[in-house]
Amino acid sequence: MKLSSWIVAAATAAGVMMSAPAVAQFEKAEDAVKYRQSAFTLMGAHFGRIGAVVKGEAPYSPAVAADAKVVETISHLPFAGFGEGTEGDDTGARPEIWQDRAKFDKAAENMQAAVAELAKVAASGDEGALRGAFGAAGKSCKDCHDDFRRRR
Amino acid sequence: MKLSSWIVAAATAAGVMMSAPAVAQFEKAEDAVKYRQSAFTLMGAHFGRIGAVVKGEAPYSPAVAADAKVVETISHLPFAGFGEGTEGDDTGARPEIWQDRAKFDKAAENMQAAVAELAKVAASGDEGALRGAFGAAGKSCKDCHDDFRRRR
Repeated sequence: MKLSSWIVAAATAAGVMMSAPAVAQFEKAEDAVKYRQSAFTLMGAHFGRIGAVVKGEAPYSPAVAADAKVVETISHLPFAGFGEGTEGDDTGARPEIWQDRAKFDKAAENMQAAVAELAKVAASGDEGALRGAFGAAGKSCKDCHDDFRRRR
Repeated sequence: MKLSSWIVAAATAAGVMMSAPAVAQFEKAEDAVKYRQSAFTLMGAHFGRIGAVVKGEAPYSPAVAADAKVVETISHLPFAGFGEGTEGDDTGARPEIWQDRAKFDKAAENMQAAVAELAKVAASGDEGALRGAFGAAGKSCKDCHDDFRRRR
Protein backbone atom coordinates (compact mmCIF):
# COMPACT_ATOMS: atom_id res chain seq x y z
CA MET A 1 0.00 0.00 0.00
CA LYS A 2 1.33 3.47 -0.89
CA LEU A 3 2.04 5.96 1.85
CA SER A 4 -0.72 8.28 0.64
CA SER A 5 -3.20 5.40 0.80
CA TRP A 6 -2.02 4.62 4.29
CA ILE A 7 -2.62 8.19 5.38
CA VAL A 8 -6.11 8.15 3.93
CA ALA A 9 -6.80 4.78 5.56
CA ALA A 10 -5.44 6.00 8.88
CA ALA A 11 -7.48 9.19 8.73
CA THR A 12 -10.58 7.19 7.83
CA ALA A 13 -9.99 4.76 10.67
CA ALA A 14 -9.46 7.66 13.06
CA GLY A 15 -12.65 9.29 11.84
CA VAL A 16 -14.59 6.10 12.34
CA MET A 17 -13.14 5.74 15.83
CA MET A 18 -14.21 9.26 16.73
CA SER A 19 -17.79 8.81 15.55
CA ALA A 20 -18.56 5.18 16.37
CA PRO A 21 -19.45 4.35 19.95
CA ALA A 22 -16.38 2.99 21.69
CA VAL A 23 -18.30 -0.08 22.75
CA ALA A 24 -18.45 -1.07 19.08
CA GLN A 25 -14.98 -2.55 19.43
CA PHE A 26 -16.43 -5.08 21.84
CA GLU A 27 -19.20 -7.57 21.29
CA LYS A 28 -20.76 -6.96 24.68
CA ALA A 29 -20.50 -4.22 27.28
CA GLU A 30 -19.14 -6.75 29.76
CA ASP A 31 -16.29 -7.48 27.34
CA ALA A 32 -15.39 -3.79 27.38
CA VAL A 33 -15.50 -3.73 31.19
CA LYS A 34 -13.33 -6.84 31.44
CA TYR A 35 -10.91 -5.38 28.91
CA ARG A 36 -10.43 -2.07 30.67
CA GLN A 37 -10.13 -3.76 34.07
CA SER A 38 -7.54 -6.14 32.67
CA ALA A 39 -5.51 -3.23 31.35
CA PHE A 40 -5.58 -1.50 34.75
CA THR A 41 -4.64 -4.77 36.48
CA LEU A 42 -1.52 -5.16 34.35
CA MET A 43 -0.61 -1.49 34.69
CA GLY A 44 -1.01 -1.69 38.45
CA ALA A 45 1.12 -4.82 38.73
CA HIS A 46 4.02 -3.39 36.75
CA PHE A 47 3.72 0.08 38.26
CA GLY A 48 3.77 -1.56 41.67
CA ARG A 49 7.06 -3.30 40.87
CA ILE A 50 8.63 0.05 40.06
CA GLY A 51 7.16 1.37 43.30
CA ALA A 52 8.85 -1.41 45.25
CA VAL A 53 12.20 -0.30 43.82
CA VAL A 54 11.52 3.37 44.52
CA LYS A 55 10.56 2.51 48.11
CA GLY A 56 13.71 0.42 48.53
CA GLU A 57 11.77 -2.83 48.97
CA ALA A 58 13.37 -4.30 45.85
CA PRO A 59 16.79 -3.73 44.31
CA TYR A 60 17.19 -1.47 41.32
CA SER A 61 17.55 -3.47 38.11
CA PRO A 62 16.96 -3.14 34.37
CA ALA A 63 13.57 -4.73 34.97
CA VAL A 64 12.44 -1.25 36.01
CA ALA A 65 12.77 -0.05 32.42
CA ALA A 66 10.85 -3.06 31.12
CA ASP A 67 8.12 -2.53 33.71
CA ALA A 68 7.82 1.15 32.82
CA LYS A 69 7.64 0.30 29.11
CA VAL A 70 4.81 -2.16 29.75
CA VAL A 71 2.94 0.48 31.76
CA GLU A 72 3.43 3.02 28.96
CA THR A 73 2.23 0.62 26.26
CA ILE A 74 -0.85 -0.42 28.20
CA SER A 75 -1.67 3.15 29.28
CA HIS A 76 -3.17 3.72 25.85
CA LEU A 77 -5.54 0.78 26.00
CA PRO A 78 -8.16 0.94 28.75
CA PHE A 79 -10.02 4.05 27.62
CA ALA A 80 -11.49 2.31 24.58
CA GLY A 81 -13.36 0.22 27.15
CA PHE A 82 -15.35 3.15 28.59
CA GLY A 83 -17.87 3.50 25.77
CA GLU A 84 -21.54 4.31 26.18
CA GLY A 85 -23.43 1.42 27.71
CA THR A 86 -20.50 0.21 29.77
CA GLU A 87 -21.33 2.23 32.87
CA GLY A 88 -22.56 -0.57 35.15
CA ASP A 89 -23.03 0.03 38.86
CA ASP A 90 -20.61 -2.65 39.97
CA THR A 91 -17.65 -1.94 37.75
CA GLY A 92 -15.64 0.47 39.87
CA ALA A 93 -16.23 3.20 37.31
CA ARG A 94 -18.15 6.24 38.55
CA PRO A 95 -20.90 7.86 36.46
CA GLU A 96 -18.82 11.05 36.40
CA ILE A 97 -16.79 9.43 33.63
CA TRP A 98 -19.74 9.69 31.28
CA GLN A 99 -21.03 12.97 32.78
CA ASP A 100 -17.77 14.86 32.34
CA ARG A 101 -15.96 13.01 29.61
CA ALA A 102 -13.66 15.92 28.77
CA LYS A 103 -12.32 15.94 32.31
CA PHE A 104 -11.90 12.16 32.27
CA ASP A 105 -10.10 12.29 28.94
CA LYS A 106 -7.79 14.99 30.27
CA ALA A 107 -7.00 12.87 33.32
CA ALA A 108 -6.21 9.95 31.02
CA GLU A 109 -3.91 12.13 28.93
CA ASN A 110 -2.14 13.37 32.04
CA MET A 111 -1.51 9.80 33.11
CA GLN A 112 -0.30 8.77 29.66
CA ALA A 113 2.14 11.70 29.58
CA ALA A 114 3.37 10.93 33.09
CA VAL A 115 3.99 7.24 32.42
CA ALA A 116 5.66 8.05 29.09
CA GLU A 117 8.04 10.30 31.02
CA LEU A 118 8.53 7.53 33.60
CA ALA A 119 9.40 5.08 30.81
CA LYS A 120 11.89 7.60 29.39
CA VAL A 121 13.56 8.11 32.75
CA ALA A 122 13.61 4.38 33.49
CA ALA A 123 15.11 3.61 30.09
CA SER A 124 17.85 6.18 30.69
CA GLY A 125 19.01 4.24 33.73
CA ASP A 126 19.05 7.43 35.81
CA GLU A 127 18.16 5.84 39.13
CA GLY A 128 18.17 9.21 40.90
CA ALA A 129 15.46 10.60 38.64
CA LEU A 130 13.25 7.55 39.01
CA ARG A 131 11.61 8.57 42.26
CA GLY A 132 10.42 11.91 40.89
CA ALA A 133 9.04 10.43 37.69
CA PHE A 134 7.38 7.61 39.63
CA GLY A 135 5.81 10.11 42.02
CA ALA A 136 4.43 12.22 39.20
CA ALA A 137 2.99 9.15 37.50
CA GLY A 138 1.50 7.93 40.78
CA LYS A 139 -0.13 11.30 41.30
CA SER A 140 -1.71 11.11 37.83
CA CYS A 141 -3.21 7.73 38.77
CA LYS A 142 -4.51 9.05 42.08
CA ASP A 143 -5.97 12.23 40.58
CA CYS A 144 -8.08 10.17 38.20
CA HIS A 145 -9.03 7.58 40.81
CA ASP A 146 -10.12 10.32 43.22
CA ASP A 147 -12.56 11.73 40.68
CA PHE A 148 -13.63 8.71 38.68
CA ARG A 149 -13.11 5.47 40.56
CA ARG A 150 -15.77 4.17 42.87
CA ARG A 151 -14.68 3.81 46.47
CA ARG A 152 -15.00 0.24 47.65
CA MET B 1 15.93 -6.81 27.45
CA LYS B 2 12.36 -7.95 27.82
CA LEU B 3 10.95 -8.30 31.29
CA SER B 4 10.56 -12.05 31.09
CA SER B 5 14.10 -12.43 29.78
CA TRP B 6 15.37 -10.32 32.60
CA ILE B 7 13.51 -12.36 35.18
CA VAL B 8 14.89 -15.59 33.74
CA ALA B 9 18.41 -14.16 33.54
CA ALA B 10 18.29 -12.77 37.05
CA ALA B 11 16.86 -15.94 38.50
CA THR B 12 19.43 -18.06 36.73
CA ALA B 13 22.30 -15.84 37.85
CA ALA B 14 21.09 -16.03 41.42
CA GLY B 15 20.69 -19.79 41.14
CA VAL B 16 17.21 -19.66 42.55
CA MET B 17 15.20 -20.45 39.44
CA MET B 18 14.25 -23.92 40.60
CA SER B 19 13.70 -23.14 44.24
CA ALA B 20 11.98 -19.76 44.38
CA PRO B 21 8.26 -19.80 43.78
CA ALA B 22 7.31 -17.61 40.83
CA VAL B 23 4.39 -16.42 42.89
CA ALA B 24 6.89 -14.30 44.82
CA GLN B 25 6.27 -11.47 42.37
CA PHE B 26 2.71 -11.35 43.62
CA GLU B 27 1.46 -10.81 47.13
CA LYS B 28 -1.19 -13.49 46.83
CA ALA B 29 -1.80 -16.39 44.47
CA GLU B 30 -5.07 -14.80 43.42
CA ASP B 31 -3.13 -11.72 42.30
CA ALA B 32 -1.04 -13.93 40.04
CA VAL B 33 -4.15 -15.57 38.62
CA LYS B 34 -5.82 -12.21 38.00
CA TYR B 35 -2.64 -10.92 36.41
CA ARG B 36 -2.21 -13.78 33.96
CA GLN B 37 -5.91 -13.77 33.08
CA SER B 38 -5.76 -10.03 32.47
CA ALA B 39 -2.83 -10.50 30.11
CA PHE B 40 -4.69 -13.17 28.14
CA THR B 41 -7.82 -10.98 28.03
CA LEU B 42 -5.89 -8.12 26.44
CA MET B 43 -4.05 -10.42 24.05
CA GLY B 44 -7.31 -12.03 23.01
CA ALA B 45 -9.02 -8.69 22.41
CA HIS B 46 -6.26 -7.31 20.21
CA PHE B 47 -5.64 -10.61 18.46
CA GLY B 48 -9.35 -10.78 17.75
CA ARG B 49 -9.26 -7.37 16.07
CA ILE B 50 -6.57 -8.61 13.70
CA GLY B 51 -8.69 -11.70 13.11
CA ALA B 52 -11.64 -9.54 12.10
CA VAL B 53 -9.46 -7.91 9.45
CA VAL B 54 -8.10 -11.24 8.22
CA LYS B 55 -11.65 -12.59 7.98
CA GLY B 56 -12.78 -9.50 6.07
CA GLU B 57 -15.16 -8.42 8.83
CA ALA B 58 -13.21 -5.19 9.34
CA PRO B 59 -11.23 -3.07 6.88
CA TYR B 60 -7.47 -3.31 6.78
CA SER B 61 -5.88 -0.34 8.54
CA PRO B 62 -2.67 0.63 10.32
CA ALA B 63 -4.43 -0.31 13.56
CA VAL B 64 -3.49 -3.90 12.68
CA ALA B 65 0.17 -3.12 13.31
CA ALA B 66 -0.64 -1.47 16.63
CA ASP B 67 -2.80 -4.41 17.67
CA ALA B 68 -0.07 -6.89 16.74
CA LYS B 69 2.50 -4.87 18.69
CA VAL B 70 0.29 -4.92 21.79
CA VAL B 71 -0.13 -8.69 21.46
CA GLU B 72 3.63 -9.13 21.11
CA THR B 73 4.41 -6.95 24.14
CA ILE B 74 1.87 -8.68 26.36
CA SER B 75 2.85 -12.17 25.13
CA HIS B 76 5.83 -12.04 27.48
CA LEU B 77 3.81 -11.27 30.59
CA PRO B 78 1.31 -13.95 31.61
CA PHE B 79 3.73 -16.77 32.31
CA ALA B 80 5.12 -15.09 35.41
CA GLY B 81 1.64 -15.64 36.84
CA PHE B 82 1.80 -19.45 36.69
CA GLY B 83 4.00 -19.96 39.73
CA GLU B 84 3.66 -22.75 42.26
CA GLY B 85 0.59 -22.32 44.41
CA THR B 86 -1.43 -20.63 41.68
CA GLU B 87 -2.96 -23.83 40.32
CA GLY B 88 -6.52 -23.35 41.56
CA ASP B 89 -9.34 -25.56 40.28
CA ASP B 90 -11.45 -22.73 38.95
CA THR B 91 -8.86 -20.71 37.07
CA GLY B 92 -9.05 -22.22 33.60
CA ALA B 93 -5.49 -23.52 33.98
CA ARG B 94 -5.09 -27.30 33.83
CA PRO B 95 -2.78 -29.15 36.25
CA GLU B 96 -0.72 -30.29 33.25
CA ILE B 97 0.92 -26.86 33.33
CA TRP B 98 2.65 -27.75 36.57
CA GLN B 99 3.06 -31.44 35.70
CA ASP B 100 4.86 -30.82 32.42
CA ARG B 101 6.32 -27.38 32.76
CA ALA B 102 8.89 -27.88 30.00
CA LYS B 103 6.12 -28.59 27.50
CA PHE B 104 4.13 -25.60 28.72
CA ASP B 105 7.17 -23.34 28.48
CA LYS B 106 7.83 -24.56 24.96
CA ALA B 107 4.24 -23.83 23.99
CA ALA B 108 4.63 -20.34 25.43
CA GLU B 109 7.83 -19.79 23.45
CA ASN B 110 6.14 -20.99 20.26
CA MET B 111 3.37 -18.47 20.80
CA GLN B 112 5.80 -15.65 21.57
CA ALA B 113 7.75 -16.39 18.38
CA ALA B 114 4.58 -16.58 16.30
CA VAL B 115 3.17 -13.29 17.57
CA ALA B 116 6.56 -11.59 17.15
CA GLU B 117 6.48 -12.70 13.51
CA LEU B 118 2.89 -11.46 13.23
CA ALA B 119 3.94 -8.07 14.61
CA LYS B 120 6.78 -7.92 12.09
CA VAL B 121 4.49 -8.75 9.19
CA ALA B 122 1.83 -6.31 10.39
CA ALA B 123 4.39 -3.52 10.78
CA SER B 124 5.65 -4.14 7.23
CA GLY B 125 2.22 -3.29 5.86
CA ASP B 126 2.24 -6.45 3.72
CA GLU B 127 -1.48 -7.14 3.81
CA GLY B 128 -1.09 -10.30 1.75
CA ALA B 129 1.23 -11.92 4.29
CA LEU B 130 -1.02 -11.06 7.22
CA ARG B 131 -3.35 -14.04 6.91
CA GLY B 132 -0.52 -16.57 7.05
CA ALA B 133 1.15 -14.95 10.04
CA PHE B 134 -2.18 -14.62 11.81
CA GLY B 135 -2.98 -18.27 11.14
CA ALA B 136 0.36 -19.42 12.53
CA ALA B 137 -0.11 -17.30 15.64
CA GLY B 138 -3.64 -18.57 16.09
CA LYS B 139 -2.42 -22.14 15.84
CA SER B 140 0.15 -21.46 18.57
CA CYS B 141 -2.65 -20.20 20.83
CA LYS B 142 -4.82 -23.23 20.07
CA ASP B 143 -2.00 -25.74 20.56
CA CYS B 144 -1.41 -24.45 24.07
CA HIS B 145 -5.11 -24.14 24.88
CA ASP B 146 -5.73 -27.72 23.74
CA ASP B 147 -3.15 -29.05 26.16
CA PHE B 148 -3.27 -26.65 29.05
CA ARG B 149 -6.55 -24.75 29.20
CA ARG B 150 -9.49 -26.21 31.02
CA ARG B 151 -12.54 -26.80 28.86
CA ARG B 152 -15.53 -24.84 30.13
